[in-house]
Amino acid sequence: MALRLSTLFLRTLREDPAEAEVASHRLLLRAGYIRRAAPGIYTWLPLGLRVLRKVEAIIREEMDAIGAQEVHFPALLPKEPYEATNRWTEYGEGIFRLKDRKGGDYLLAPTHEEMFTLLVKDLYSSYKDLPLSIYQIQNKYRDEARPRAGLLRGREFIMKDSYSFDIDDAGLDASYAAHRGAYLRIFERLGLEIVPVAATAGAMGGSKSEEFLHPTPIGEDTFVRSAGGYAANVEAVTTVVPADIDFTNAPAARVLDTPDTPTIETLVAVANAVAPRDGGEWTAADTLKNVVLALDLPTGERRIVVIGVPGDRAVDLKRIEANIGAHLEIGGEIGVEAAGEDDLKKHPGLIKGYIGPGQTLDAAVLGTEGTTGLLYLVDPRVVSGTSWATGANEAGKHVFDLVAGRDFAWDGTIEAVEVRAGDLAPDGSGPLEAARGIEMGHIFALGRKYAEALDLKVLDSNGKLAVVTMGSYGVGVTRAVAALAESNHDEKGLTWPAAVAPADVHVVAVGRGEEIFDTAASLTAELEAAGLEVIYDDRPKVSPGVKFGDAELLGVPTILAVGRGLADGVVEIKNRKTGDAENVPVADAVKYILDRV
Amino acid sequence: MALRLSTLFLRTLREDPAEAEVASHRLLLRAGYIRRAAPGIYTWLPLGLRVLRKVEAIIREEMDAIGAQEVHFPALLPKEPYEATNRWTEYGEGIFRLKDRKGGDYLLAPTHEEMFTLLVKDLYSSYKDLPLSIYQIQNKYRDEARPRAGLLRGREFIMKDSYSFDIDDAGLDASYAAHRGAYLRIFERLGLEIVPVAATAGAMGGSKSEEFLHPTPIGEDTFVRSAGGYAANVEAVTTVVPADIDFTNAPAARVLDTPDTPTIETLVAVANAVAPRDGGEWTAADTLKNVVLALDLPTGERRIVVIGVPGDRAVDLKRIEANIGAHLEIGGEIGVEAAGEDDLKKHPGLIKGYIGPGQTLDAAVLGTEGTTGLLYLVDPRVVSGTSWATGANEAGKHVFDLVAGRDFAWDGTIEAVEVRAGDLAPDGSGPLEAARGIEMGHIFALGRKYAEALDLKVLDSNGKLAVVTMGSYGVGVTRAVAALAESNHDEKGLTWPAAVAPADVHVVAVGRGEEIFDTAASLTAELEAAGLEVIYDDRPKVSPGVKFGDAELLGVPTILAVGRGLADGVVEIKNRKTGDAENVPVADAVKYILDRV
Repeated sequence: MALRLSTLFLRTLREDPAEAEVASHRLLLRAGYIRRAAPGIYTWLPLGLRVLRKVEAIIREEMDAIGAQEVHFPALLPKEPYEATNRWTEYGEGIFRLKDRKGGDYLLAPTHEEMFTLLVKDLYSSYKDLPLSIYQIQNKYRDEARPRAGLLRGREFIMKDSYSFDIDDAGLDASYAAHRGAYLRIFERLGLEIVPVAATAGAMGGSKSEEFLHPTPIGEDTFVRSAGGYAANVEAVTTVVPADIDFTNAPAARVLDTPDTPTIETLVAVANAVAPRDGGEWTAADTLKNVVLALDLPTGERRIVVIGVPGDRAVDLKRIEANIGAHLEIGGEIGVEAAGEDDLKKHPGLIKGYIGPGQTLDAAVLGTEGTTGLLYLVDPRVVSGTSWATGANEAGKHVFDLVAGRDFAWDGTIEAVEVRAGDLAPDGSGPLEAARGIEMGHIFALGRKYAEALDLKVLDSNGKLAVVTMGSYGVGVTRAVAALAESNHDEKGLTWPAAVAPADVHVVAVGRGEEIFDTAASLTAELEAAGLEVIYDDRPKVSPGVKFGDAELLGVPTILAVGRGLADGVVEIKNRKTGDAENVPVADAVKYILDRV
Repeated sequence: MALRLSTLFLRTLREDPAEAEVASHRLLLRAGYIRRAAPGIYTWLPLGLRVLRKVEAIIREEMDAIGAQEVHFPALLPKEPYEATNRWTEYGEGIFRLKDRKGGDYLLAPTHEEMFTLLVKDLYSSYKDLPLSIYQIQNKYRDEARPRAGLLRGREFIMKDSYSFDIDDAGLDASYAAHRGAYLRIFERLGLEIVPVAATAGAMGGSKSEEFLHPTPIGEDTFVRSAGGYAANVEAVTTVVPADIDFTNAPAARVLDTPDTPTIETLVAVANAVAPRDGGEWTAADTLKNVVLALDLPTGERRIVVIGVPGDRAVDLKRIEANIGAHLEIGGEIGVEAAGEDDLKKHPGLIKGYIGPGQTLDAAVLGTEGTTGLLYLVDPRVVSGTSWATGANEAGKHVFDLVAGRDFAWDGTIEAVEVRAGDLAPDGSGPLEAARGIEMGHIFALGRKYAEALDLKVLDSNGKLAVVTMGSYGVGVTRAVAALAESNHDEKGLTWPAAVAPADVHVVAVGRGEEIFDTAASLTAELEAAGLEVIYDDRPKVSPGVKFGDAELLGVPTILAVGRGLADGVVEIKNRKTGDAENVPVADAVKYILDRV
């Protein structure tokens, strides 16, 4: 049944709502698709709900097509399963917690790995039951510190989350690949440009992970890509590691007085003055900057580490956050910040401004084997044979020609510095450029972390208990609506792709006179009889300007205007997105539209 | 695509789960439709989700058919709107409350009157915008003290809730009637027997209210009905009020010693001994029992009232709870219990065992005008001229022939005593019988309570601001699944009505041999091609007994067994509900089923 604007529960707004920062948010509010109920919490009005349901239907079809089976979990869940995996603690302030009348602890689930794992444990017991993929389209909750951009980062939102269960790694690879394919098809059907990028698994754990980013300047995620096809989340980019250098003939390290060198720049100037170098000048890239960081661990402990990086690169705390976990025996989110004065006081071996790894392997200062005992990680560019200017662990002195692997060692390497446009892609596909995107989906080869924590084992083909290996796969459903609005609008309003538009045709009766309204009504009926969804603006006393304005704002793909042209037997059919309009004889209008939909 | 049991995420249980008290709960668990996640909180497995979605679709179609428009509100809501209507306080322990990271108060909404009211206030401003009915199918939350019976009384559950908005009472009547009609059609399509019963509006407020009860012995609600068609919630039954009696010639009241009369029974015996009566004996129905009750008000205050009822009737606290609000200037839920020793100590004018209204109008004890000042309400059977034996407000003494209206007065009447089988229906349709039922729906003519509290006004046809009048209408969606299971099962399992069954046909391949499985697979394909939904039990190494057992347990309406008969060219087609089975030639099987679906 056509949506008639005379009765549709809709009011468009003339003014941009003050609360809205980005176009999608502004337009979804103005066009009456959603309303704000609380920060990051939205109500869906009839038109918005139609778009949302279409997005859900596409996702559901593609999940069903890879044999995933739909289930539905509660949003309100008890604490216990999340304690078993330590996520009750690890989530910190990021989730909503509550107590029931008996004092039991509950949460509003941000994601459902634990419950899916327990459900499979409850039902299945043999490798013959696997592989299995199950999914749900369901409300999720996150207590975001800064909900923003409407549906893009909300506190109550809808996700499709699925989980795969396999007996072995090959099975997980196949399940992961099936989901990856389904995701590409979902975004293609939605008409949403997507770049799958390599990602770090982060707090989720697991071995392999990809994000599906929708490139847009308003995206919160930075990623890099090469013309040759490489793409990765900045956290996941790996540095092209240079080859080791033969240091047989390298000059010996020298400690020199370097007063007044508070910055890398001043140090470089002094270096070139006091320690001239064979075959070129000292540059910032030749200085080894040793940065002291404080880690806030999920256990509550604060741990100090030192990271050595080339002086020409800024440290990227998010990259460190994403990668530091591999060097600790601990899961969960780790907070990383520059160490403060209080932290440094506890480590008198660290001489501020002059920190270095030590002048010889036997007299190491940094590193778990050094006098400080502090974990010492270095940028991957610090390979054996590279020669550095760095702190001499004594106020006013630096050491020059300190050679990696000859004069100092380290505990491991870490991706710790900024990725720059022009850096080379690790796969040899050329220089990288930076871009921004919205995370629309994320797939994780989780492995056995959750199954182990919750004891999900099945009998394998030898009759022995084996831990199941899992994948976890998410698509932001409400976020997809926002991303679609963001990438499908112009200065007049929304321009929905056909697959998700709230209707196929927006029929506008313009002007007065029974004939106009009768014709518009009968065209509406014919279009519906032909299987199209129609919005019909039958409001009797609304000006043509307002009606056309609303039609442009609502953004249905085809606008059919019945007005003055009717005297000449024609109606106007307009493509909302391109603006192309044509006068078409009334009798041909329905066929004209059907040919183009 | 057929659901193949070899891959369907399903495990049926042989044993009855210990947690399940009622048949629907037991069978939905055993047949793998749902799983418990926490007390009163359930996970939907694939088959259960299919049933749930079918129930939702029927409800959605009938709501759309009366012009109601679908929207979707958040479940997580801020406190403020619920404070404006005082429900934040009134709900007491019955809702889940939580705080966000900034300390803001939130609740998981048990129902959405406030939000709908505010949304309409946000969008609409004129009587021309009305009438409006909007609805949602959405998760609700109640922190039940005793979640029970699986989906019948859960803590996270799905409701369809709708709200109507009208400019005047006639409009509300029409909206109410439209919803009432839609509800009757919904339950008819679901195949669920329903009795609409008059109900009290309770904490919701409003003028008119009906419950849609599904009669079943396991129902939590007691209702009464007459052969002549009257039906009401016990709380809402009104007593047939007898006519006043002329007391011109009634004997004068007498106070007599009545030692050892701790019960009504002993009082009656003593009365007949010491105060013989003209024209018959004293019976329990002639004694006036004055019950002291303590009310716990939403404000935290504890108030004492006295209620006078015929001694042959037990007091019904639930009926008092439902009706006491009209006598107080206060909304919300009021707790009612017998007054305790501590309460009585505060009112020394109440002589335990001998409480009465006082011997003359001038020397009243009970009532706001009496010496105790306590509110005094009486059963509607206490009409002017009725003559009673009751307490004389002195230990060891009762007063006899105390005439209502001559010797004592009261502050009001209240429905306070039990309704008994055999009591007359208030509409003259005959004697009542008691029955039990599950509340499947509830409709309220709310009136202006919420619109006033939240200031929802529109311009009326005279250009003046008028408060909108509202209705509120709910259907328990997850509860409907349980009620359907409860009313459609036998000792072998579920017997779904076609409208909500997870599939139309359950094809079972029984025995071994390629031909059997090939035939079963091709019949499955043919049935699907004909538009039917099919579960196909293609498990290769499962015994016929287990397969048939599962088919009976799952409860799909038609079971098609392909087995030994195939040698004779026939398959067995069985009606799950009636048990009727017939051998049908393979070639006719699909047509046979189509003719009967």
